Amino acid sequence: MEPIFATDRTRELLPKIKEFIEKELYPLETPEYLAHDFSHVEPILQQKRQLVKQAGLWGLHLPEEDGGLNLTLCEFGQISEVLASSPFGHFVFNTQAPDIGNTELMHKYAPQHLKERYLKPLMNGEIRSCFSMTEPEFAGSNPTRMGTTAVKDGDDYVINGHKWFTSSADGAAFAVVMAVTNPEAAPHKRASQILVPMETPGVKLVRNIPIMGHAGDSWASHAEMLYENVRVPQANLIGAEGAGFLLAQERLGPGRIHHCMRFIGIAERSFDLMCRYAVSRELEEGKVLGDTQFIQGFIAESRAEIDAARLLVLRTAHNIDQFGAASVRDEISMIKFFTANMMLRVIDRSIQTHGGLGMTSDILLSYWYAHERAARIYDGADEVHKSALARSILKGYGLDVRRKK
Amino acid sequence: MEPIFATDRTRELLPKIKEFIEKELYPLETPEYLAHDFSHVEPILQQKRQLVKQAGLWGLHLPEEDGGLNLTLCEFGQISEVLASSPFGHFVFNTQAPDIGNTELMHKYAPQHLKERYLKPLMNGEIRSCFSMTEPEFAGSNPTRMGTTAVKDGDDYVINGHKWFTSSADGAAFAVVMAVTNPEAAPHKRASQILVPMETPGVKLVRNIPIMGHAGDSWASHAEMLYENVRVPQANLIGAEGAGFLLAQERLGPGRIHHCMRFIGIAERSFDLMCRYAVSRELEEGKVLGDTQFIQGFIAESRAEIDAARLLVLRTAHNIDQFGAASVRDEISMIKFFTANMMLRVIDRSIQTHGGLGMTSDILLSYWYAHERAARIYDGADEVHKSALARSILKGYGLDVRRKK
Amino acid sequence: MEPIFATDRTRELLPKIKEFIEKELYPLETPEYLAHDFSHVEPILQQKRQLVKQAGLWGLHLPEEDGGLNLTLCEFGQISEVLASSPFGHFVFNTQAPDIGNTELMHKYAPQHLKERYLKPLMNGEIRSCFSMTEPEFAGSNPTRMGTTAVKDGDDYVINGHKWFTSSADGAAFAVVMAVTNPEAAPHKRASQILVPMETPGVKLVRNIPIMGHAGDSWASHAEMLYENVRVPQANLIGAEGAGFLLAQERLGPGRIHHCMRFIGIAERSFDLMCRYAVSRELEEGKVLGDTQFIQGFIAESRAEIDAARLLVLRTAHNIDQFGAASVRDEISMIKFFTANMMLRVIDRSIQTHGGLGMTSDILLSYWYAHERAARIYDGADEVHKSALARSILKGYGLDVRRKK
Amino acid sequence: MEPIFATDRTRELLPKIKEFIEKELYPLETPEYLAHDFSHVEPILQQKRQLVKQAGLWGLHLPEEDGGLNLTLCEFGQISEVLASSPFGHFVFNTQAPDIGNTELMHKYAPQHLKERYLKPLMNGEIRSCFSMTEPEFAGSNPTRMGTTAVKDGDDYVINGHKWFTSSADGAAFAVVMAVTNPEAAPHKRASQILVPMETPGVKLVRNIPIMGHAGDSWASHAEMLYENVRVPQANLIGAEGAGFLLAQERLGPGRIHHCMRFIGIAERSFDLMCRYAVSRELEEGKVLGDTQFIQGFIAESRAEIDAARLLVLRTAHNIDQFGAASVRDEISMIKFFTANMMLRVIDRSIQTHGGLGMTSDILLSYWYAHERAARIYDGADEVHKSALARSILKGYGLDVRRKK
Repeated sequence: MEPIFATDRTRELLPKIKEFIEKELYPLETPEYLAHDFSHVEPILQQKRQLVKQAGLWGLHLPEEDGGLNLTLCEFGQISEVLASSPFGHFVFNTQAPDIGNTELMHKYAPQHLKERYLKPLMNGEIRSCFSMTEPEFAGSNPTRMGTTAVKDGDDYVINGHKWFTSSADGAAFAVVMAVTNPEAAPHKRASQILVPMETPGVKLVRNIPIMGHAGDSWASHAEMLYENVRVPQANLIGAEGAGFLLAQERLGPGRIHHCMRFIGIAERSFDLMCRYAVSRELEEGKVLGDTQFIQGFIAESRAEIDAARLLVLRTAHNIDQFGAASVRDEISMIKFFTANMMLRVIDRSIQTHGGLGMTSDILLSYWYAHERAARIYDGADEVHKSALARSILKGYGLDVRRKK
Repeated sequence: MEPIFATDRTRELLPKIKEFIEKELYPLETPEYLAHDFSHVEPILQQKRQLVKQAGLWGLHLPEEDGGLNLTLCEFGQISEVLASSPFGHFVFNTQAPDIGNTELMHKYAPQHLKERYLKPLMNGEIRSCFSMTEPEFAGSNPTRMGTTAVKDGDDYVINGHKWFTSSADGAAFAVVMAVTNPEAAPHKRASQILVPMETPGVKLVRNIPIMGHAGDSWASHAEMLYENVRVPQANLIGAEGAGFLLAQERLGPGRIHHCMRFIGIAERSFDLMCRYAVSRELEEGKVLGDTQFIQGFIAESRAEIDAARLLVLRTAHNIDQFGAASVRDEISMIKFFTANMMLRVIDRSIQTHGGLGMTSDILLSYWYAHERAARIYDGADEVHKSALARSILKGYGLDVRRKK
Repeated sequence: MEPIFATDRTRELLPKIKEFIEKELYPLETPEYLAHDFSHVEPILQQKRQLVKQAGLWGLHLPEEDGGLNLTLCEFGQISEVLASSPFGHFVFNTQAPDIGNTELMHKYAPQHLKERYLKPLMNGEIRSCFSMTEPEFAGSNPTRMGTTAVKDGDDYVINGHKWFTSSADGAAFAVVMAVTNPEAAPHKRASQILVPMETPGVKLVRNIPIMGHAGDSWASHAEMLYENVRVPQANLIGAEGAGFLLAQERLGPGRIHHCMRFIGIAERSFDLMCRYAVSRELEEGKVLGDTQFIQGFIAESRAEIDAARLLVLRTAHNIDQFGAASVRDEISMIKFFTANMMLRVIDRSIQTHGGLGMTSDILLSYWYAHERAARIYDGADEVHKSALARSILKGYGLDVRRKK
Repeated sequence: MEPIFATDRTRELLPKIKEFIEKELYPLETPEYLAHDFSHVEPILQQKRQLVKQAGLWGLHLPEEDGGLNLTLCEFGQISEVLASSPFGHFVFNTQAPDIGNTELMHKYAPQHLKERYLKPLMNGEIRSCFSMTEPEFAGSNPTRMGTTAVKDGDDYVINGHKWFTSSADGAAFAVVMAVTNPEAAPHKRASQILVPMETPGVKLVRNIPIMGHAGDSWASHAEMLYENVRVPQANLIGAEGAGFLLAQERLGPGRIHHCMRFIGIAERSFDLMCRYAVSRELEEGKVLGDTQFIQGFIAESRAEIDAARLLVLRTAHNIDQFGAASVRDEISMIKFFTANMMLRVIDRSIQTHGGLGMTSDILLSYWYAHERAARIYDGADEVHKSALARSILKGYGLDVRRKK
């Protein structure tokens, strides 16, 4: 049945992309690739990127002027879901975070010289980038508290600070660093986003933080960073000075759709694995897992939850396309916790269905179980979004939760 | 923001209906009406029906030829939600179950003489009807097991059987009775639907079954019925002989949308009550319920769940409109358990927010808490729908759960 | 298997009480008694009380000097569970709230003349009483906010105030009223408990508040009360002036055990009903409900949850017996929300297992479903207890949540 | 407050063990040890084992005749909880699975020559062992389906088979292998347990199966094994021929207590970490995580759930001590799913409280999150235990779920 949000372009693109992923990427889901660091998989993924280009599927997220298709957010969301059915999908199509976010940011706000030097090779997949915002000393729920500073000195900024969860810093060509440039301004106008080439003296990747027991590497890593007297030209500023949070907010709307549709793609694939196993795993002569109601319950609940979440996210994408992100802030909060929790439940049920096999890297699920737990934390923890959503709703009923009490 | 499934007609109708309900029906939500039997409220509701007619809003569910608007299911679903925001809404607009289902059924399948005599006054709100299917001796999850028989004798059927949960039988003019007419046929082709006037000798309303401690009356009741040698003309057959289950199935698609949108209307209103109370109930000087995160959590989760469920149901309605109920059987199963459970969670959170007041009939919530618990049971218990949905999904993976093992 | 907390006395008493309840009270579980007001059942329950006396089982909650057995709280808790397996059990054994709490209170703190006049007939089951504390204008979560006042005038108090949820006021001989006597004292030392005979001029039972659609009557009711210039002798003071909250606190420990063990008794009986129905209700030829995994899941989860909750409550009772209520405040908070939620889940599963029958008053469950929802609200809502428990735990880690921020 | 199940020995031992663990093992919880394979930690743990011996705390699980303390299961359970508060605790005290199970098994059933050669060094911590039962081709829920065979040839068994999840095989001195010796016997009497030295020709450790992306090594690994014409003396049989399942059952009772108390120790420590972080992590000036109700909810619910689970498990241990494992089969099923799920919820809440830090190996939680997910699978998946428990309960109501239908 035709999905509600289908367009001519999704009708054309989705089958092609699906076919590509099933043919080229699913076969990589072996312990060889699932149980080694990313750098071990990377060479073959780079080959697959060439196939994407040959297939004319490169740059799906880009505007027309950059050789893309100018897809709406709602269209790209549907593609993003399919890409996420393989853990390698987004990388191979060069639509992986944080590069996709940096691409969008720079497309809109970077000065021309930075576009030439950094955005072009980024869009071509020749370099990678990272986004350096979170700091270990301050709770992520309150982004305006920030210790990193960028002080003007001549034509330069001199940056000092301590960051972590700078994802994909390992091997990146540059970081977009959030730093306080205007300490005297109102809290939301203190910080700016500055492009910092990774080879700049003073940029120090302290370590890839071990997550669930393993540090990872390359794109699949999360760095702790030190910026010690890092000197970059003021011309490396992206957007206006003091506009750091505004830009971060702006990347949030589309970024949220990307994340949530990725969650849905993961859930959908986990669901598919669950069903496949349910029909094939024998419990006793002539009886398979799928014959049992417990597993049927997992399947039915997951089906309903995935469908509901997808509609919620695509509605939000549609509304962003129509009315702009600013007017659907509540929806943007809502989809985050709703979809992340849904995904984790579906992964969990699929693992449970697989029994011991589900814990192993012989199949995909445990990879997602471990890595996607973070979905309820980064980019706003559940609790932050729930409070924000409720505050906004209650404001409509005349209560300002943040009033001085 | 414009809802996804808005049409010109919903744009025109919804505000009018909302206004009517808020003005005419919300004021009835007092212990006077919430803590008495339906017959106590009925006279004033009949007056309100006149106002509906005067406002030109009568017959929203009817086809054009019967003076209705020929609304799509997706359009009517959106109206149904709004009607359900008051427990009296559907009754006042004459779109209440089981009459709405009987209306649709008779419109399509009743012979002309039954339409003249019964359908017309039903559509005018002059009489009420009931649907007599469930039997205490047989589990509702397997409708083909049925003890009630209709045996031909001359030009008549002679009906014998024992039914319960014949909702609204008290005061109804007729029942549509499901009875086995072809005991030798395949299980799904044994039963027929026969119109039985309630004044026919042998029709015995044993009792209005007490539900949660109270028997109720009139439209708001659920009867136990005995049919003892009840003789009606064979001309009272609705549809073909043996087509009883087929017709029951057919009423299911639209009926499910009606139910589920009603659930959503109830959830939405419960949500509204929760928010109103949250901003007004003081916990201590200068601090209200809505300032606390527990209540904020209730609000945020409810908002997301209601929105997701509504999209899921309206998508299904839209697909029934486009492709017919037969092709969206899975969705029709899915929305039932997903939406009913969502509604009950939201009602429960709203009650919890209201504290002791939530238990009382000073406000609406406890009425719904008690009466809508049945939503997870009637018309297919959660467990039945989950199994059915999973079986259908697994069939797509090559497993026939119902094969002989 | 011998339960952990068995004693010689429980070994002797429990089988007798069980037998009595099964023989004398279970047969009353018919629509005749479940779907009518309490006054309709009361005469037969009064007869049963005589049988209790004849069987030597009267006064189980009383100290030796009052003709009781001096049971420990842990012993009485185990009895309370069994009594609660019938909705009439506690009433028939005269251990029903709020009388049991008033009995304990007066035993300890009432002056002799009140004991003679009120406590004795209360212990004999000749009169009933109520406890008038909650006020509609103030959130129950903060009991120190109270509008009712008792002003000295000569030898009397003159009481004015508005109360609700004064359970069992209908037909009671007296109320214990909480009123502010010392408005200038610290918040926790402002109120006193005063015995007010119901026939005193100015005591007005405004209404039995309709709960879930029905007002109820007699013992099974919850009154809204007005006290208008109610004049009682100062000698009717129970405990010291200003000690109202202290005494309310003190009744809380044992009261909590009573409530929670009652919850467990209800859960256990609901579980029993679920199992009985599961083995007898046929789904199809040769297959009953209990053959399905969904129902098996309900049963297994309920079994574990009931057992765990019982151990938690009896441990608390044991610790109160050993160390006093003051030293197990955290446990006393913990068992409330843990047990109430458990009970409601088990009732809900049992209803779901029974299908339509579960909604009716042909069996017990819907009675409990409707009436016991309040368990998560009265005597401290879930949210209040969770916060209180967490605050106390965090204090152990050095955080004073209530510090001035 | 004195715990319910305290004895003189727990009173004496628990504080000593706690102190040891806090002083010697907690400091090892650094990325250095949490984010590397076990072999990297092992040398320092071996040193700690010497300290345990010096402290006179070695052999807590052993009977008196083997130099142990003859602790009851209920006593050892309480110790096991404390040991589990460090992921290295059980290993350092030599009470780690699967060695503890093999120790108990061999103590009871191994012939003297095996005790001399293998049990003694095992008890001394000089060698490690493994238990080789699960096979990839057969669902773990039905252990009687087994492909591995041991065929008599002269004085030997010749073993052929394919196993996986042979935990800790890497570096073990011997495996206890479950193999079919009597294929013609009743299903439960077909298999035997045979000790197989790992250096025997034909024993092949195919791989340490990567779990959540990583293969691990040494004790912390789960091997896939091939047994190809492995020849061992028939004298290596443990217990009677055909008694394999009986012995596996027997190890189950105590083994279940070990597991569940370990779960509780993990939950308790996760709870402690959550509270510590809640009081110290600042959200804004003067406001910490613990000031928010969401976190308070996590804390309160966790506290109640841990306490309830502990009581349930210790009651079971107590009953096994009193009445034998055979008479508490239901409890042994019940504690598994109840406790495992509780533990995973508490870990999850603790991670959520820690935000990004919770995902990292800078603290313990993510290690447990990833590794303990298996708790709902191994040793009987939730679904298996729930069905088994329900079947047993329903048998008491007269229903034999396993009857031929």
